[in-house]
Amino acid sequence: MAYPTTVMKLIHELMKLPGVGSRTADRLAFHLLRTSEADALALARAIAELRARVRYCSECFNVAESDPCEVCGDATRDRTRLLVVEHPKDLLAFERTGYRGRYHVLHGRLSPMEGMDASHITLPELINRVRDGSIREVILATNPDLEGDGTALTIVEQLRGSQARVTRLARGVPSGSSIEYASTAVLADALHGRIEMNSKMAEDDA
Amino acid sequence: MAYPTTVMKLIHELMKLPGVGSRTADRLAFHLLRTSEADALALARAIAELRARVRYCSECFNVAESDPCEVCGDATRDRTRLLVVEHPKDLLAFERTGYRGRYHVLHGRLSPMEGMDASHITLPELINRVRDGSIREVILATNPDLEGDGTALTIVEQLRGSQARVTRLARGVPSGSSIEYASTAVLADALHGRIEMNSKMAEDDA
Repeated sequence: MAYPTTVMKLIHELMKLPGVGSRTADRLAFHLLRTSEADALALARAIAELRARVRYCSECFNVAESDPCEVCGDATRDRTRLLVVEHPKDLLAFERTGYRGRYHVLHGRLSPMEGMDASHITLPELINRVRDGSIREVILATNPDLEGDGTALTIVEQLRGSQARVTRLARGVPSGSSIEYASTAVLADALHGRIEMNSKMAEDDA
Repeated sequence: MAYPTTVMKLIHELMKLPGVGSRTADRLAFHLLRTSEADALALARAIAELRARVRYCSECFNVAESDPCEVCGDATRDRTRLLVVEHPKDLLAFERTGYRGRYHVLHGRLSPMEGMDASHITLPELINRVRDGSIREVILATNPDLEGDGTALTIVEQLRGSQARVTRLARGVPSGSSIEYASTAVLADALHGRIEMNSKMAEDDA
């Protein structure tokens, strides 16, 4: 004897989700059985509507219900600057800073350990966008960690020879934090990237 | 700017699942966007079919596509014995032992800390089943932990006065394990519940 077929089928589908093993799938399936019918069906419908309506923007690969997306379709934005991020959520974070250029969403990062190579992310598409010549600056904003830095270096490598400037985000102590709790790597970055406050200091340095 | 409405709606629905916070919901939503359309829609359909087809058995509260369920509908099984479990998965585990009586699925346990009282589980229904008189033995198989034991004690209490025997699972060292790694509680249970191997030992004990 086992669970009814319908329950087994749902558990099987839930186990295809990232981070969902058999115990979690089991728990989720029984939750979906016990919760209100409205909630369970709303989830089923939300998944179907996601697939029916959401697309990737064919220019920047942001998620959108229109193509081009809201940002790429906005003629008031600077079309010569591209900010390269790993994930659509990162794009939203930069929108809150008031950045007025455009984006390129990689949808991941290079990670040999996890078998993620250039074909898994929109890296070839980025290189093509920059090669077409209208981009003057590519700002790399991959995550400041091992894989993110590796991805940035690969992009720099592949863009060698293009006329675009390639920059990366500044790295240092995060605004609002305590020096006391900053890691050694953060403090080393902050020291290495220190900037002049007055000309006297610049003289001392020289 | 935010994610497209359809993505936000799905994240909102996913966050209603147990153990799913905003980060996990976000990850699941993007997985559902990137995975094959077939897989995403299969999940949506499995949820809808679960709600359309799966019922609780009106006798034992097991999950089933028929009512009564396979076990309760089986005339060859002993109708005088009820094995009380917390979860349908526990019922499946006992089926593998060859047990031929019937079951009662509580769908949880009493847990004052989590606000779970008798109305959240099928405890009143269990008491009614036993009170109707045809049950001769109630075997309590709630989990051997604080809440499971508490639930078992409450059931014993509420069945006081019925003519049914109330038993609970034996507790001791699990078959196939090492004494070396057994916890103190397990060893204390095993010592307390020790059984006679020969009559000499029984005499020594006396």
